[in-house]
Amino acid sequence: MARYKLTVEYDGCGFVGWQAQNNGLGVQQVMEEAVLAFCGETVRVFAAGRTDTGVHATGQVAHIELEKAFPANKVRDALNFHMKNRGVAVLMAEDAADDFHARFSATGRAYQYRIINRRAPLTFHKGYRWWVPVPLDVDAMHNAAQVLIGLHDFTTFRATQCQANSPVKTLDRLDVVRDGEEITLHVEARSFLHHQVRNFAGTLKRVGEGKWTADDVRAKLDAKDRCAGGQTAPPDGLFLSRVDY
Amino acid sequence: MARYKLTVEYDGCGFVGWQAQNNGLGVQQVMEEAVLAFCGETVRVFAAGRTDTGVHATGQVAHIELEKAFPANKVRDALNFHMKNRGVAVLMAEDAADDFHARFSATGRAYQYRIINRRAPLTFHKGYRWWVPVPLDVDAMHNAAQVLIGLHDFTTFRATQCQANSPVKTLDRLDVVRDGEEITLHVEARSFLHHQVRNFAGTLKRVGEGKWTADDVRAKLDAKDRCAGGQTAPPDGLFLSRVDY
Repeated sequence: MARYKLTVEYDGCGFVGWQAQNNGLGVQQVMEEAVLAFCGETVRVFAAGRTDTGVHATGQVAHIELEKAFPANKVRDALNFHMKNRGVAVLMAEDAADDFHARFSATGRAYQYRIINRRAPLTFHKGYRWWVPVPLDVDAMHNAAQVLIGLHDFTTFRATQCQANSPVKTLDRLDVVRDGEEITLHVEARSFLHHQVRNFAGTLKRVGEGKWTADDVRAKLDAKDRCAGGQTAPPDGLFLSRVDY
Repeated sequence: MARYKLTVEYDGCGFVGWQAQNNGLGVQQVMEEAVLAFCGETVRVFAAGRTDTGVHATGQVAHIELEKAFPANKVRDALNFHMKNRGVAVLMAEDAADDFHARFSATGRAYQYRIINRRAPLTFHKGYRWWVPVPLDVDAMHNAAQVLIGLHDFTTFRATQCQANSPVKTLDRLDVVRDGEEITLHVEARSFLHHQVRNFAGTLKRVGEGKWTADDVRAKLDAKDRCAGGQTAPPDGLFLSRVDY
């Protein structure tokens, strides 16, 4: 048996997320079909994070185990050949230890949430950024974000359908940075609750608009109530950008 | 009469370029339909650069003249409302002098040509970058590009169907910069020949691959022969980014 660690990029538009659902195509399915087409093996492809419908990845990590061993670069190129024009690409394939597991071995995950902050609607970024036409105060957003750093009960930022055992997580990084009309949230933690990053984005947008302060964010965190938080930002702006091991 | 200067962004995918052709939709037509829908006036929209099929713009400039005057921001918002989901957005509308002409008043134009240089195929950048899988030497590309700066007969880099009176132009800037897997050519001149930037990109790619040197580029420029130049790079990577007045 040969195990491979795969670094994967995908365009979340056109997928119902990582996992196939009754209502559409999952990235996982596209990759499993590519493995089958490449070497005739029916395998399960495991990923570090099961991204939602419309969420993108620039650095998702997955693993597969094959009966027959190939050079890692051959695995990368063959999978890319069979996924041509399907919006999924293997950026890197590496030999992995037998006990490597994309999800359970992960020690950290990094997401970026990207906003275009301008009056004019989106053209080529449609589906890939959250369009916010009202001017946002990025310094206020960044300062308020620091309230969320550390070990907290994040119930306020957790989707009601979240299946995690505990809402208590440690948030390592939440930086808000502006580059011209583009605002990026850089978010890092060992693991995340369902919709956590999108709920952070929705809440910080309220701060950027001047409607909420850093103290409000602290009060909302303390409320441990999803209804206290801001809107869930759309999936468009969310990118899984790195997984650490 | 009221004249407006419009800064325009568009997604070149889905257009046959700025001008409508028999074979498809032009950006100009979408804008003219939006003007008509907004204020009932049938006008011509003039642009600084008539971009080709599949070429994008982040900073195209156009002008219109209306019988009835509106506040410039109202013109911007109304046009955007009527172009919703058509891949065109007015970033800025400004009052312009009666003799302002988007094309003839322009004193400089800036383009970016964007390449993704990696082994894996493109996902979300498909249509918006040139995918070059072989590793490119960006320093060599940048150095060779400097040969092209200044006043030259650019026949080697001019499409055979180019309608400009003269192939003699002054190139002000051609910088080649890498940021991770992305390579950007920054190109500036008062005006350009047809396909000039894409022909620069195709030629510099040969340099990046190690097949041509800066001396080869000089010889090809001196040859004044389109057949001496490199391939015409695809429109996907080309963005009209700024027009100066």
